[in-house]
Amino acid sequence: MRLTIGVDIGGTKVAAGVVDPDGRILGDVVRYPTPRNDSEALADVIGRVVVELRERSTDHDIAAVGVGIAGFVDEDRARIVLAANLGLSDDPITERIRRRVDLPVVVENDANAAAWAEARFGAGRGSDHVVLVTLGTGVGGGIVMDGRLQRGRYGVAAEVGHYRVVRHGRRCGCGNNGCWEQYASGRALVAEAQDLATTDPVRAAHLLKLADGDISRIRGPEITQAALEGDEGALECFRAVGEWVGLGMADLAAILDPECFVVGGGVSDAGDILLAPARASFDKHVTGRATRRLADIRTAELGSQAGIVGAADLART
Amino acid sequence: MRLTIGVDIGGTKVAAGVVDPDGRILGDVVRYPTPRNDSEALADVIGRVVVELRERSTDHDIAAVGVGIAGFVDEDRARIVLAANLGLSDDPITERIRRRVDLPVVVENDANAAAWAEARFGAGRGSDHVVLVTLGTGVGGGIVMDGRLQRGRYGVAAEVGHYRVVRHGRRCGCGNNGCWEQYASGRALVAEAQDLATTDPVRAAHLLKLADGDISRIRGPEITQAALEGDEGALECFRAVGEWVGLGMADLAAILDPECFVVGGGVSDAGDILLAPARASFDKHVTGRATRRLADIRTAELGSQAGIVGAADLART
Amino acid sequence: MRLTIGVDIGGTKVAAGVVDPDGRILGDVVRYPTPRNDSEALADVIGRVVVELRERSTDHDIAAVGVGIAGFVDEDRARIVLAANLGLSDDPITERIRRRVDLPVVVENDANAAAWAEARFGAGRGSDHVVLVTLGTGVGGGIVMDGRLQRGRYGVAAEVGHYRVVRHGRRCGCGNNGCWEQYASGRALVAEAQDLATTDPVRAAHLLKLADGDISRIRGPEITQAALEGDEGALECFRAVGEWVGLGMADLAAILDPECFVVGGGVSDAGDILLAPARASFDKHVTGRATRRLADIRTAELGSQAGIVGAADLART
Amino acid sequence: MRLTIGVDIGGTKVAAGVVDPDGRILGDVVRYPTPRNDSEALADVIGRVVVELRERSTDHDIAAVGVGIAGFVDEDRARIVLAANLGLSDDPITERIRRRVDLPVVVENDANAAAWAEARFGAGRGSDHVVLVTLGTGVGGGIVMDGRLQRGRYGVAAEVGHYRVVRHGRRCGCGNNGCWEQYASGRALVAEAQDLATTDPVRAAHLLKLADGDISRIRGPEITQAALEGDEGALECFRAVGEWVGLGMADLAAILDPECFVVGGGVSDAGDILLAPARASFDKHVTGRATRRLADIRTAELGSQAGIVGAADLART
Repeated sequence: MRLTIGVDIGGTKVAAGVVDPDGRILGDVVRYPTPRNDSEALADVIGRVVVELRERSTDHDIAAVGVGIAGFVDEDRARIVLAANLGLSDDPITERIRRRVDLPVVVENDANAAAWAEARFGAGRGSDHVVLVTLGTGVGGGIVMDGRLQRGRYGVAAEVGHYRVVRHGRRCGCGNNGCWEQYASGRALVAEAQDLATTDPVRAAHLLKLADGDISRIRGPEITQAALEGDEGALECFRAVGEWVGLGMADLAAILDPECFVVGGGVSDAGDILLAPARASFDKHVTGRATRRLADIRTAELGSQAGIVGAADLART
Repeated sequence: MRLTIGVDIGGTKVAAGVVDPDGRILGDVVRYPTPRNDSEALADVIGRVVVELRERSTDHDIAAVGVGIAGFVDEDRARIVLAANLGLSDDPITERIRRRVDLPVVVENDANAAAWAEARFGAGRGSDHVVLVTLGTGVGGGIVMDGRLQRGRYGVAAEVGHYRVVRHGRRCGCGNNGCWEQYASGRALVAEAQDLATTDPVRAAHLLKLADGDISRIRGPEITQAALEGDEGALECFRAVGEWVGLGMADLAAILDPECFVVGGGVSDAGDILLAPARASFDKHVTGRATRRLADIRTAELGSQAGIVGAADLART
Repeated sequence: MRLTIGVDIGGTKVAAGVVDPDGRILGDVVRYPTPRNDSEALADVIGRVVVELRERSTDHDIAAVGVGIAGFVDEDRARIVLAANLGLSDDPITERIRRRVDLPVVVENDANAAAWAEARFGAGRGSDHVVLVTLGTGVGGGIVMDGRLQRGRYGVAAEVGHYRVVRHGRRCGCGNNGCWEQYASGRALVAEAQDLATTDPVRAAHLLKLADGDISRIRGPEITQAALEGDEGALECFRAVGEWVGLGMADLAAILDPECFVVGGGVSDAGDILLAPARASFDKHVTGRATRRLADIRTAELGSQAGIVGAADLART
Repeated sequence: MRLTIGVDIGGTKVAAGVVDPDGRILGDVVRYPTPRNDSEALADVIGRVVVELRERSTDHDIAAVGVGIAGFVDEDRARIVLAANLGLSDDPITERIRRRVDLPVVVENDANAAAWAEARFGAGRGSDHVVLVTLGTGVGGGIVMDGRLQRGRYGVAAEVGHYRVVRHGRRCGCGNNGCWEQYASGRALVAEAQDLATTDPVRAAHLLKLADGDISRIRGPEITQAALEGDEGALECFRAVGEWVGLGMADLAAILDPECFVVGGGVSDAGDILLAPARASFDKHVTGRATRRLADIRTAELGSQAGIVGAADLART
C-alpha cells in the first residue's frame, strides 16, 4: 500500500496526517501552530511533522508529501505567490520543504486540495465534474473538470469568491466591488443579521440577545444556532444568503456545467437551512433550466480533513 | 498525412472542408443551405458534402468527420439536445450521420469546435488555457483548459453569454435577466446606439443617417463602419460594449485563469476599437490584478473557418 | 354652486364631465375619439365637448375648463412640450382651447390631474402629502406636497416611472436603462409571466393556456384573472412586480415622506394580490423604518374618472 | 429691521449668529461645544447663546430664534425624533428651548435649514425649485419646491442620501444596501481611493504617500488636495464619485424637476473637479434629456453659515 502525507497549512495551525490511496487518514492528525512571516520556520514545522509521521508509520513506506496552503501557489507549484494570512509572498516554499523531507513534494492551494479530496473521496466521488464552494469567512473554491484539478494557467483558477454578482455592489477586501464572497459567505451572513438588527430590532430580538444586545458582536455560529432553534430572524438571514449561494452557482453552472457542487466551510454547518434556499435559487436562476440537467448541490463530507486528504492524494498522482 | 473533414452547421448554411493535421483547409470550402426542422434532410446534406469532399480528395485518405452544430450537444456527443435555430431537439444526429458516411463521426457544439480550433491553430496556439468568446448577435464561447476542450458534465459548459453580469438586468431570450450577452454582443451594440439616438440625437446624427433616420433600423455593421470612420457616437457605443466585454472576462478569469481570451464574432471586426476598451476594463476589474499575471486578449485568427477546422480536428483526436 | 368642466385627453379617447366643488361628476361623462397629430382638431373636439356640457347644464354656471393631457405640459401650462401618444410637440394648446371655449382654461398633465383628484377627493383625501403612482402599461405619477400639486420648475416633476431602480437594468423607451417602469408596470408583469413561461413552462401552464400557448401573446388582464383564480404562476408574477412597486415607493418615501401612496392604473385592479407584497417590500426597504412613521399604501378610488375630476378642480383653484 | 437668531447644532459645536432679513449675519458667529446625551444641557447652551447675542445687539430687536439640528425633527417641529450624533431621541427640544429664551422658537433639521438658506440667499436665490445636496461624510439634503421648504408629512423628507442607487449595493449604516450616500459622499471618495490603492498601488502612489503608506489612513481632504495638484489617481476617484453624484441627481430630477441643484459639504470643496463629471453624468442619465430643460448644478455659496442663516430665516417666516 502506497501512503502519502498530507499537510494542511492554515492561518493558525498546521495539521497533517498519513493518507492511504482510498483517502483515509491512518492514525491521528498531528497539529502545530503556524509560524507567521517566516518561511524557514514554516518549512521547519513541516519537516518536523513529516519526520514525526514517518516514525509513527515505520511499517509503511511514505511515498511523497502533499502540502495545502492558504494562499496563491504559482503555475509550477514551486512558489507561494501570495499568502496574506501567513505573511508570505513570492516565496520558494516547495524547495524549502524539499530540503527538509527528502521526498517528492507537491504544494497546492488549500481549497484546490480540498476540492480534489471531495471529488475523489467525498461528496463528489464518482463524478469527474465537481465544483467545491467553501463558505467560510470568505468564499473559496476548487474546480475538478474532466477528472482533473483545474489550476488555470497561472495557478489561480477557481477564485470563485471574487467573481462579481452585483455590479457596483458591496466593497470587497480585494479592492473590487460586488464579489460573490460579500454575499454568500459567513461575513455576509453576519451582515444580513446586522442589517436586520438595525432595521427591525423586534425580528432580530433573539439574535441581538445572543450578542448581548451589541449589533457589532453578532457572530456566525450564533446565527446558525438560532436558526437551528427555529428563530425566524436567523432563518431569514440564511434564506438571504442561501439565495446568493444558489445564484452564484447558477452562474458557475453556465460556465462550467458540473455534475455537482459540494458546499463546505462553516456556513454549511447549517445544512439544509442554507442548502434548501440555495437549491431553490439555483433552480430558479440557472440558464436553460427548462432543458438542461441540473447539477446536484451537496454538503461536503470530509470537513476539516479535506485539505490533508486532498494534498496527500495530489502528491500521489 | 491523415486528413479529416470538418462540417460547420449554422442557421442558414452548411459549410465543410478537408482539414490537415496542421489545421489547414485543403482546397475550397463547400457550402449548402441548411435544411430546417428536418433532421434526416440535414443528415442527407452532410452525407452529400462528405461524398463530394472525399471524391475531390481521391489521393488522400479521409479518416473521420467532425461536425460543429449551432446547438446543445449531449454529454456523449450522440444527440442534439436543443438547436433552436435549426428547429431540432432531442435528436440522434450522430447516428443519422454515421449511417450516411461510413466513417467515424464526432459531433460538437460549434462554439466549442471554434474554441478548439483557435486554441490549437489560431490566436491561442501554444497555450493550454484558452477561452474563446464569440461576440455575434449573442455571446457564445468555448473553454480549453489543461489542453483539453471542456464540455462540462452534460455537454453544455461555456455558455458564457448566459452568466449574469447585472442582477435584475436586461431581459434575455433565455428567460433570465442580466445575461452577459445582453451587454457584450452585437445586439448590445445596437442597443447602445439606439439609446444614444433616443437621448442624444445630435451625437447620434451619423448613426441615424446610416439608418435612414429610423432608430429601429440601426444595425451592427453600420455602427462598426461609422466607428472605423471615427464617428464619436459610434465610438462611444463600442466603448460601452467594450467595457462590458472586459468586465465579463474579468469574471471568467477569476474562475478559469486562462492564458488568453480569443475574441471572435462579428463585433470583433472592429478590432482595437472594441478590444482597447475591453482590455482597459479587464485590467481594471479583474480580481487580484496587483499580483496576478493578466491574461492576453486577442482577436480570433481563423474567422468563419474556425468551426470547420475545430470540428475536423476534434474528429481526429 | 361653482361648477367646472374636466376634460381628460388620452391616447384613444377624450372624456369629459361637469364637476362640482366636492369632486363629484354631475350627469354622464361624454366621450369622443382623440384626433391624432392634429392640434386644431383636438381643440375642436374639446370645444365641442364644452359646448355640449354647458348646454346640458343650463341651470348651472360653468366657471372654467380644466384639461388633463397625456403628455408633458410646460411650466406656464401654456404649451404641450411633448405628447408622443397624441403625436404633438411644442404646441400652444391652451391658447387654441381658449379661443374656442371663452372660459378660463387650465391644462395639466393627466397623471398630475389624477393625483390632485385622489389627494382631494379620493384615497388621499384629508392628507396634504400624497403621491399617486399609476401602474398602467408604464408607470406614471403625481405629487401633492404641502397641500399643493408639485409640478416642478419646468412642469415635468413626478416622472417617477423614470427614476432608475437598477443601474444598467432593463432598457426603457426613454433611452435609459433600469427605469422603475420596466419593473413595476403592466409591461413588467407581462415580462415576468413571459420569463416564467420560458424557464418553467409547467409552473406557467395556466398562463400559457390563457395565451393559447404563445408566450408573446400573454397579456396583463389574463395574468390578473389567473391570479384572482389562485394560479400560483400568476401570483408569483404579481409578487415579483409587487416587490418592485414597494421598493420604488421606499425610495420615493426617502425623498418625499408622504402620508400615503395611492396606487392606480390597470395593474392595481389585482388589489391586495399586488398591494400585499408591495407593502411588505416597502416596509422592508424604506430607510429609517425602525423609527419613522410609515406611509400608507392605498388603492385609488376614482378610477378612470380621476383625470376629469382633477383637471376640473385644478381649473377651479 | 427685523432680526432673528440662528443656531446651528452640530455633532461637535453649537454655532449661532444674528441674521438680518437679507440673510446676512451681523457681527461674529459665537461657538460652544455641543453637550452630548443631555437635552437640558443642550437647551442651556442655546439659552446662553441667545442671551449673549441679544446683549450684543442691544439696539436691535430680536424677533425669534431658529435652531437647526443634526437629526430628525417631527412634523410639528416640537420634538427631536432621533439625533444619533447628539445622543438624543424622542426629546421635546422646542419646549425646552422656549422655556429659556422667551421668544418664538422654530426647530428644524439642519440640512433643511441650509437648503432654505441657499434657496433664499445663496446659490439658489431667485428660484422657487431648489434641491440642496450636502456631500459630507454622508449625503444629506433639503428640498425647496414651489418656494416652500418641503418637510414631508412627518418631517423626514429629503433623506436623499438614503434612496437606493444600487440594488444589493454597498452596505449603509441605515441598515439598507446601496444608498446613494455610499457612492456620492466623502466616505465614498475614500472608498474609491482605498480600492485604487489596493488594486493599483502605482496609480495610487501619491495618495498612499499622503497617508504614510497606510491604506486605512487615506482621508478625504488629502484626496482633494492631491486632485487639486493634478494627481491622476485622485482625479480618477473624483470622477468616479462625480459620476454617482450626477446619476443620483438625474433620479431626483425625474421626481422633483428642480431649477437647480446646490451642492455643499466638504466634498464640494473640490469644485469643478467634482462638479464637471457630475454635470456630465447628470446630462447623460436624466430621463427625457432630449426635450427637457436641464437643471443647473451649482456650488453652495453660504458654506458653514448656511445652517445659521436658514434656521434664522425659518424663524422669521
